[in-house]
Amino acid sequence: MRMKVAQVLHMKGGTTEASYSNNSLYQQKVISSTKPIRDEVITCLYKETIPRSLAVADLGCTSGPNTFSVIYELIETVEKLCRDLNHESPEYITFLNDLPSNDFNTVFKSLESFKQKLSKEMVGGKQTGPCYIAGVPGSFYGRIFPTKSLHFVHSSYSLHWMSQVPEGVENNKGNVCMTRTSPLNVCNSYYHQFQRDFSMFLKYRAQEVVEGGHMVLTLLGRSSGDPSMEKSCHIWDIVAEALNQMVLEGIIKEDQMDSFNVPFYTPSASELESEVKKEGSFAINHLEAFETSWEAACDEKRNDSKEYQITQFMRAVAEPLLMNHFGESIMDDVFQNCQDILADLMSKGDLVHVSLCISLTRTS
Amino acid sequence: MRMKVAQVLHMKGGTTEASYSNNSLYQQKVISSTKPIRDEVITCLYKETIPRSLAVADLGCTSGPNTFSVIYELIETVEKLCRDLNHESPEYITFLNDLPSNDFNTVFKSLESFKQKLSKEMVGGKQTGPCYIAGVPGSFYGRIFPTKSLHFVHSSYSLHWMSQVPEGVENNKGNVCMTRTSPLNVCNSYYHQFQRDFSMFLKYRAQEVVEGGHMVLTLLGRSSGDPSMEKSCHIWDIVAEALNQMVLEGIIKEDQMDSFNVPFYTPSASELESEVKKEGSFAINHLEAFETSWEAACDEKRNDSKEYQITQFMRAVAEPLLMNHFGESIMDDVFQNCQDILADLMSKGDLVHVSLCISLTRTS
Repeated sequence: MRMKVAQVLHMKGGTTEASYSNNSLYQQKVISSTKPIRDEVITCLYKETIPRSLAVADLGCTSGPNTFSVIYELIETVEKLCRDLNHESPEYITFLNDLPSNDFNTVFKSLESFKQKLSKEMVGGKQTGPCYIAGVPGSFYGRIFPTKSLHFVHSSYSLHWMSQVPEGVENNKGNVCMTRTSPLNVCNSYYHQFQRDFSMFLKYRAQEVVEGGHMVLTLLGRSSGDPSMEKSCHIWDIVAEALNQMVLEGIIKEDQMDSFNVPFYTPSASELESEVKKEGSFAINHLEAFETSWEAACDEKRNDSKEYQITQFMRAVAEPLLMNHFGESIMDDVFQNCQDILADLMSKGDLVHVSLCISLTRTS
Repeated sequence: MRMKVAQVLHMKGGTTEASYSNNSLYQQKVISSTKPIRDEVITCLYKETIPRSLAVADLGCTSGPNTFSVIYELIETVEKLCRDLNHESPEYITFLNDLPSNDFNTVFKSLESFKQKLSKEMVGGKQTGPCYIAGVPGSFYGRIFPTKSLHFVHSSYSLHWMSQVPEGVENNKGNVCMTRTSPLNVCNSYYHQFQRDFSMFLKYRAQEVVEGGHMVLTLLGRSSGDPSMEKSCHIWDIVAEALNQMVLEGIIKEDQMDSFNVPFYTPSASELESEVKKEGSFAINHLEAFETSWEAACDEKRNDSKEYQITQFMRAVAEPLLMNHFGESIMDDVFQNCQDILADLMSKGDLVHVSLCISLTRTS
């Protein structure tokens, strides 16, 4: 039976030690590193339109300290512009989107402290324009917003999740998604699913974003066009190795391993570019690939080892899908294995993720 | 220390037997009984403006089967009009509002079944206009929506909750809110808090609702202008009696009882009318008081006694506030007492709630 992604996929909710909320430093650093791109886009958008109300959406907002960070930063940028240009502040209409299984309760409970931060820390002590926040549950591979209702769309580290595991990947033995050693037919299946999903994403956003509106999208990607040549590594490579060990040890049945695949795809920059051009509603302003060390997941103030912290970061992302397939009882063992594999890999050299960031404008 | 209402007040979340979701039949029957008023308003609104997109908000949506019922019914009414008038369906933009402590996760998980119901059951099997749904956490005694962004606002059984317990009610001995036996100064404090809150509510909604837009508000009320003459009873009367028994038994300390007050007020029709007229942004189309027997909380298909079912209905509403003040351990005893008191009262005659329903138009 195929997994219903929209009902199963979510980061680990709540605010416990193991939650995504407490293990999202990596994603925060990626968001910080793309700030200059967003700043430029927001400045352009503001100066071009001088909007009285600015509607922005964050797609794949999850729950945790990162949820409000992009919104905060955007308001800060616009407020600075308003002060410099001696304009009145606009209204901010912000939509936080994620799948319905996301922990929106935790997001909403942190709303008050976000609003307090907004009113206290803003540049020059000046009061910002009012900020209205709504949670929008739903898959961004479908329509989720009214027609021409958004000025700016942001998404960071969500678009490498596809709408479903592609069909025809039964022979992807020992892997859980497309990777270096996947057979050609599996690579093709994953690529075609990405093409279908990403073109749908563009088509629906084109209906929702106003003409002249912008999108800045960041996702995990590949540095190489040929998947078999890829040097960077992602967390599912480590998870697959951990699971394979447990198959050898007889803890996991081989067919249970074979039937586990994740709807995860890391495109190359040219694959991304090609879909944008094919769909035709958006112009590309900027497209870049950049590397981030896995050690970005580590907080130096914490006493635990780097391997442990990186494993917690992996676990917050991967556990809900793994638990849904393999059950809760073996989760500690899976991630102990991951930690051991990580320690070994890290002793041999730095592990990096490749990310892609693309900035787009809705053309008329 | 005064209770922070916005952080504490919520109906019992989740979907267990004791949850609000499973004990909200009473509220459903009240919503059904005010359907003709909403139907008339929606029909007017549609015919007057023939909107291409219709933005509606339900304030105090809670979580459970009632959350989507008003939205469903509204879409059904508009779709019938479109079919009769041979119009294309509009887009529906729906906002579900409640305090941040509401269980929005449960609401969002039931979204898919709502959308399936929409696409399957709609009149004549015709597809409806697209429906976009967002959750808006926040107190409706503050601004929660952008300026002039709503065509229709609905609220049922939420506005009897005030923004806070009024000050100066220390001598309301043996009671937990304003009731028949409250001293005059307590009645005045409660009334003034209601006036402040309800006039703020009107002022903020006046900013959010477009000219010609409508509101239909239903809340618990009184049949009598003089609180000491009131014949109807509300759940806090029973809860107070149950708590008083436990004070006599030494289970609850007297000062613990004295310091427990709830931000709950049931206005008379003329008190409601007077605030609307004073605020001045809305015209009253319709204002009615009606009675509903407490037995409306009972599902005849269930095997448990009426007293038990009514107690469960009370518990789903009252327990979060009580637990916050008295702790979890005595909750079963409190509600066992409530059930005994109820059984006694019900043997003497039918218990009724008085509700008020007011229909308003935003004037220019």
